[in-house]
Amino acid sequence: MKPMTPAISLAPHGKEYQLRGPDESEKEKEALDRITDEQQKLGRGIVVVQGMGFVGAVMGAIVADAENGKGEPFYFVHGHLRPSRRSFWKVPVINSGKPPVKADDPEIPEIFRRCVLEKKTLRATWHDHAYKLADIVVVDIQLDATKPTLGRAAEGYCDLSAFSEGMRTLGRHIKPEALVLVETTVPPGTCEKVIKPILEEEFEKRGINTAENPPRVAHSYERVMPGRRYVSSIRNFWRTYAGVDDVSTELARVFLSNVLDVAHFPLYRLRSTTASEIAKVFENTYRAVNIALTLEWARLAEKSGVNLFEVIRSIRVRKGTHDNMCRPSLGVGGYCLTKDPVLANWAAAELLGTDVQLEYAVRSVDINDLMPLHTFEIIQEAVCGDLGGKTVVLLGASYLEDVGDTRHSPSATLWKKLRDAGAEVTVHDPLVETWPELEEAFANKDLAQCLKGADAVVFAVGHRAYLALDPQDVVRAAGKTPLIVDCSDFLTEEKITKYLRLGCSVKGVGKGHIRGPEGT
Amino acid sequence: MKPMTPAISLAPHGKEYQLRGPDESEKEKEALDRITDEQQKLGRGIVVVQGMGFVGAVMGAIVADAENGKGEPFYFVHGHLRPSRRSFWKVPVINSGKPPVKADDPEIPEIFRRCVLEKKTLRATWHDHAYKLADIVVVDIQLDATKPTLGRAAEGYCDLSAFSEGMRTLGRHIKPEALVLVETTVPPGTCEKVIKPILEEEFEKRGINTAENPPRVAHSYERVMPGRRYVSSIRNFWRTYAGVDDVSTELARVFLSNVLDVAHFPLYRLRSTTASEIAKVFENTYRAVNIALTLEWARLAEKSGVNLFEVIRSIRVRKGTHDNMCRPSLGVGGYCLTKDPVLANWAAAELLGTDVQLEYAVRSVDINDLMPLHTFEIIQEAVCGDLGGKTVVLLGASYLEDVGDTRHSPSATLWKKLRDAGAEVTVHDPLVETWPELEEAFANKDLAQCLKGADAVVFAVGHRAYLALDPQDVVRAAGKTPLIVDCSDFLTEEKITKYLRLGCSVKGVGKGHIRGPEGT
Repeated sequence: MKPMTPAISLAPHGKEYQLRGPDESEKEKEALDRITDEQQKLGRGIVVVQGMGFVGAVMGAIVADAENGKGEPFYFVHGHLRPSRRSFWKVPVINSGKPPVKADDPEIPEIFRRCVLEKKTLRATWHDHAYKLADIVVVDIQLDATKPTLGRAAEGYCDLSAFSEGMRTLGRHIKPEALVLVETTVPPGTCEKVIKPILEEEFEKRGINTAENPPRVAHSYERVMPGRRYVSSIRNFWRTYAGVDDVSTELARVFLSNVLDVAHFPLYRLRSTTASEIAKVFENTYRAVNIALTLEWARLAEKSGVNLFEVIRSIRVRKGTHDNMCRPSLGVGGYCLTKDPVLANWAAAELLGTDVQLEYAVRSVDINDLMPLHTFEIIQEAVCGDLGGKTVVLLGASYLEDVGDTRHSPSATLWKKLRDAGAEVTVHDPLVETWPELEEAFANKDLAQCLKGADAVVFAVGHRAYLALDPQDVVRAAGKTPLIVDCSDFLTEEKITKYLRLGCSVKGVGKGHIRGPEGT
Repeated sequence: MKPMTPAISLAPHGKEYQLRGPDESEKEKEALDRITDEQQKLGRGIVVVQGMGFVGAVMGAIVADAENGKGEPFYFVHGHLRPSRRSFWKVPVINSGKPPVKADDPEIPEIFRRCVLEKKTLRATWHDHAYKLADIVVVDIQLDATKPTLGRAAEGYCDLSAFSEGMRTLGRHIKPEALVLVETTVPPGTCEKVIKPILEEEFEKRGINTAENPPRVAHSYERVMPGRRYVSSIRNFWRTYAGVDDVSTELARVFLSNVLDVAHFPLYRLRSTTASEIAKVFENTYRAVNIALTLEWARLAEKSGVNLFEVIRSIRVRKGTHDNMCRPSLGVGGYCLTKDPVLANWAAAELLGTDVQLEYAVRSVDINDLMPLHTFEIIQEAVCGDLGGKTVVLLGASYLEDVGDTRHSPSATLWKKLRDAGAEVTVHDPLVETWPELEEAFANKDLAQCLKGADAVVFAVGHRAYLALDPQDVVRAAGKTPLIVDCSDFLTEEKITKYLRLGCSVKGVGKGHIRGPEGT
């Protein structure tokens, strides 16, 4: 936390920022006090957002942007970051009025500019002193599940130590009447069994009588989606919430009502924080299970001449009962569906003390984690087993179309398998800036250059740029007729026909109806 | 088929009908010829519905009821039944203008009266001669999957012999240009790999050149739901269809467009009958999987003080992505979800010749089949393990609320478990007339009488009559304070509180939040 020599935090855009040393600590503390005092005089509540990551940064801006009927801001927001090499750069970036996240949503730069420079209701800080000043702390610390082996998610667990340390920091600093509102997806039971006891312990150490001043803790999970509606997916969307007691619940209700569009998306109160925590992981498990179901049917469709995507479209017309049906793809990535069933399964025993095993839920994680191997098999079979020296180009590295987010991307799994089988692999993505984990395989340079000499082109992610590709151009860039692999119905029938006419073989996950190439 | 002595067919209402003997065969044949001739002169197509069961009877009436813009019927329908003890009674019942199915839907008696007595476009027959006269045969024969052991659905199979015999009958009689439209849920591949070859074989035997006159076969599955919208769930609902060739496909399209409300529920054409067959079983598997997922979460909720139904309601607000979420219950019954994944899994190897195993799908069947054991455990635990001599009343024997359909009802599974554990069990259902399989346990007599002396009352099915029950009346009828078990959120919070105040223990699937009884 306090480096002996000034250390550097490197922003994704390449600019370097010097970490603050202890000598600047007092100055920042004074700034926090002064600003907080000014803001309180303006009648604003003081909110600290703990963790300015993917959710916290945007949530912080939304809170800072919220106004009452007269156009007066409800809150001033201290966005808190740890002064680490990985995160510190966000402090100066945010305080210059720029977002610390890259996004397709035009609201993102606008809301940061407005709140930081114009309304002056948002400021980033690395100093824990901010917690002392908070009326409300919104917890947006990252919390991961660890899956030791791919395909054995039942052995997955959650290491709560860093998260708990974050809670301990709160307990050491916050006013006893401050609300701790947890937005992080946590293993069910965390608010009751982890956070509350830690806060109580730290309060007692500070001489606070927790019988009279019980910690105020609530849970309300976000449903953020990266992409064009990033801000809106937090602000204009349904929210579930619950508190550990009536006061906490009511404080959470008032806060959420002030900052979110509850007129159009009414709040849903649950009876306990455990219920709210379960809701989040159950909700994501529901999706994970529905995706997992599709893989074996994709295999069946491929071997029986059927286009499973058409079948799914025909079923989804049943609105209300069947229109949530998911489709097969390269695999499942992102931060939620890949871990939430694991968090729940681990918590069932470790936090909630039950003997319940969420087998069906956890199985879905295994199926989804291993889903990229199916595309690998499709490629391998198409080249008659020998991938040695073959040039394969994966189009798309992110886990979602039109988003540059590579967290747990299935493209990485496929890349590893192909590389291990001896293929020369290039992973292309115009929306991803760098991806060091993929070594030299990753490129966001000119697509035509990447495609040169390709023996196989894999449509892994449905980025608009890829959907727009003309078969003629792909074949021309490759300089040969590569195998075309469509991972999730990204190619229209018309395009498939074009590729076949050009002499390409075309294969697709769930697409058993494709014949060809033409003339064969 | 031709009994030596006149045999009897017994209708559910108790009336006996003598099976027709061979001497009446010629008379019926003449009647079929005469009526068909008259109807053809009126410009009507001749449709034979093969199998007048739960779907066929109502589909037959809908076809007979369909009219063109001038109010002229498109078709005359021969509803065909086998002259068996089990089915024959339907012939005279239908021909008297009455429906052969019991239903809550007021359209049912009306449509049979109208078509048989008024429009005279529907008549039942037991004579195979009808097939010779058909322009279209709609196949609604029942087809089951067999699961040798409960909980091992992967060993399930489909015996196609009776179904194939039905197809052979068609092949022996139908005009080569007649369309065979299969509505039955069949193992994927059946139209291509079973029906078409059988028809070809029989055609060839009759000297028909099948190269010039290939059998015309199409598949279009119903999505019928018993209950108040029985007719409407066939006529005013989406349909998927496909044919084995272009002519079959077009004939099916014209027929379905004439008889269904395609203006509001457009037809969905798939490329092959196998795709359409897969769509049906995949669609039901989707539901089966979503229900199966809920059981382990119900267990978790019960052990962690959470009401899972509230959690599910809070998630289902996410329209379009999460509102298809299902809820836990006593179990899954009915004719579709209990068998369709098994049909698909069996067909994957046996008809489609693939090595695909639909493990995740089949696992859902096992979970759902065994789901009633969870309610059994709840009861057993509440009575501290000893069910010997305890009086248990199950409210509901059907598989669905407000319907008298007991096919594969989970109440039967629970009844067996309770009986084997030594309990005295009464299964009550006001909508079910008889259920011989349940021996003396089944009753549809006065509910208060059934409840007398109950140690436990299980709300197994959400019939309106049960939802309306007042806790005071239940306790009064029992003459004691029975354990109350709520299998799927049938009791409001208010009612649960009332039961607790009356001194009852209340338990519920997925309801961990219930405390009590009051004062304990």
